[in-house]
Amino acid sequence: MPFRCKLRLISRICLAFKNSCTEKSNSHFAVSITNRNFSISGTVNMRFVQFTGKDGGPQHLGVQLVQGGDIIAVSAVDSRIPNTMKKFLEGGDDMLKKAKREDEVNLLTMVERIVAEGRSVIPETDVTFLAPVTKMDKLACVGLNYSGHCEEQGVSPPESPVIFSKFPSNIIGPRDNIMLPSISEKVDWEAELVIVIGKKCKALNKDEGEECIFGYTIAQDITARDWQKSKRNGGQFLLGKAMDTFCPMGPAIVTKEAICDINNLSVKTWVNGDIKQDGNTSELIFKPHEIVAYISQFMTLLPGDVILTGTPAGVGFARKPPEYLQRGDVLETEIEGLGRLRNKVL
Amino acid sequence: MPFRCKLRLISRICLAFKNSCTEKSNSHFAVSITNRNFSISGTVNMRFVQFTGKDGGPQHLGVQLVQGGDIIAVSAVDSRIPNTMKKFLEGGDDMLKKAKREDEVNLLTMVERIVAEGRSVIPETDVTFLAPVTKMDKLACVGLNYSGHCEEQGVSPPESPVIFSKFPSNIIGPRDNIMLPSISEKVDWEAELVIVIGKKCKALNKDEGEECIFGYTIAQDITARDWQKSKRNGGQFLLGKAMDTFCPMGPAIVTKEAICDINNLSVKTWVNGDIKQDGNTSELIFKPHEIVAYISQFMTLLPGDVILTGTPAGVGFARKPPEYLQRGDVLETEIEGLGRLRNKVL
Repeated sequence: MPFRCKLRLISRICLAFKNSCTEKSNSHFAVSITNRNFSISGTVNMRFVQFTGKDGGPQHLGVQLVQGGDIIAVSAVDSRIPNTMKKFLEGGDDMLKKAKREDEVNLLTMVERIVAEGRSVIPETDVTFLAPVTKMDKLACVGLNYSGHCEEQGVSPPESPVIFSKFPSNIIGPRDNIMLPSISEKVDWEAELVIVIGKKCKALNKDEGEECIFGYTIAQDITARDWQKSKRNGGQFLLGKAMDTFCPMGPAIVTKEAICDINNLSVKTWVNGDIKQDGNTSELIFKPHEIVAYISQFMTLLPGDVILTGTPAGVGFARKPPEYLQRGDVLETEIEGLGRLRNKVL
Repeated sequence: MPFRCKLRLISRICLAFKNSCTEKSNSHFAVSITNRNFSISGTVNMRFVQFTGKDGGPQHLGVQLVQGGDIIAVSAVDSRIPNTMKKFLEGGDDMLKKAKREDEVNLLTMVERIVAEGRSVIPETDVTFLAPVTKMDKLACVGLNYSGHCEEQGVSPPESPVIFSKFPSNIIGPRDNIMLPSISEKVDWEAELVIVIGKKCKALNKDEGEECIFGYTIAQDITARDWQKSKRNGGQFLLGKAMDTFCPMGPAIVTKEAICDINNLSVKTWVNGDIKQDGNTSELIFKPHEIVAYISQFMTLLPGDVILTGTPAGVGFARKPPEYLQRGDVLETEIEGLGRLRNKVL
């Protein structure tokens, strides 16, 4: 547990206001800025977003002070700060490598200064949120990673993580529409916690997995069950998982330092206001740091890579009778402290 | 069959020198330039390469006049031409959309002019070839697409293409080293013809599949059989397919107009000079235009996307006794008219 969280636990803030840890961490963050106490190593408490104006226009990288609050368009204030999260993470990695002294500037400290100065502040109602990271090398997913989701399918929990993938172009924003494909009758939901990789890493041991994680966001691993579960694609999940609009993501990437306990967050899905999934990351069979370490045995992870960590019980195909998304449905997905997706189905 | 190829067939050049169609098409190309007879719609006969200097340095996009011949560094001559194949294809698409008159300039005609002027010519011996396209959205693969490869495994040919994927960062250059991972004992070869997508497309019918193809290259779909074939990853191929260095690719992207008959090219693999695979694209169960049309039913294809089309008989695990790559091996892969990969195994 990060030192700041421990402090907050001791002062009982975390304990008393568990649901508002993210907001608390942001006010704490402001204090640390005032004290010039921020770190070169990237330990910051922030919500990063990608957005455009309400009617489109250029993309910006922003920092949202609290969930639902104002946004500081950091890439608009300083042209050295990239306007995409992926380039920001890539640049951060490079700049960290170049930094020789602790007080030398890097992208994260530049962002911290802009936020502390309160420049270029925009109300949330004036922006359109994009997915908080796009065009990454890897959009990897873990299957069967909640005990409840294994039980509802009548399968044993796997001995090691089951890894499959979607394509980055499947990603849509947190308020974008899911388009039902004409070739499927069984499009289903899967609410998932998403790991965002912050730096290049390879062959990590479990203790090192945490180091490569920049933060977390939310995704729906939308799935065409009639293509995933059948033998139509030779048993490979890809076609059932990688259709256009099958990965709503966002609204923000919350840095890991802003989350008190990643392994104790509620994960919920509603369809038209009816709750369908009501799980908790405490049920995760393989924890985020274990997943990162595991995948890094096979391939180099890169800044901006994302890993969907699996879904809790309550998906449509396992319900009795089975339920699937229909045109006109509204799918909502929430992870405690991270935010909420709201996607209409067309 | 393209009109130019038909002409050549009539004049018996194609028939007499089938193995040198690519070279012939390049000399034909030079004539068409002289006549200012090139097309705005991208019908050009060229070999595109990405390269650096012998000892590294900046990346360039180049055109190689003939296989093994000199290279024209087109991105060095005109700064409007991107230095990556992906951006070139993306820009080409945009610029084609903007072009209103037939004589209006686009990226392809700019390249044609530079080649015709013979500026910035570099001998092949002075460059290091990179993979000819990288950092794409999709690196998709087709499984079980040669009858001989189905037979050697004792499985029936599939009724529709089996699609799986690797990650773009798995790609290495045509002369780069394949690094054996410590977690596998069974690393195998799979020589494959690669489709390179030239423009955005979705839900094509079979007749339209060809339109989206910019050209072709060669890849090895290197595979850890002990991860692909076992149930270790829940039957999903991804971990066995997507390890670092598991996708040697290149040396060039040959435009489709430069290939007389894509469905009649020999495909060969040698290990330490011994031939292991000796197939022909005539054995492909699903042809390139069919594969493109099929995948486009599920997702939008984007410029720079690549599709590995499957491998002929002769892979290591199906040999008696099975054979796998060992440190020190030299793996060579050739497709008629497209070129040759040469990758050392470390």
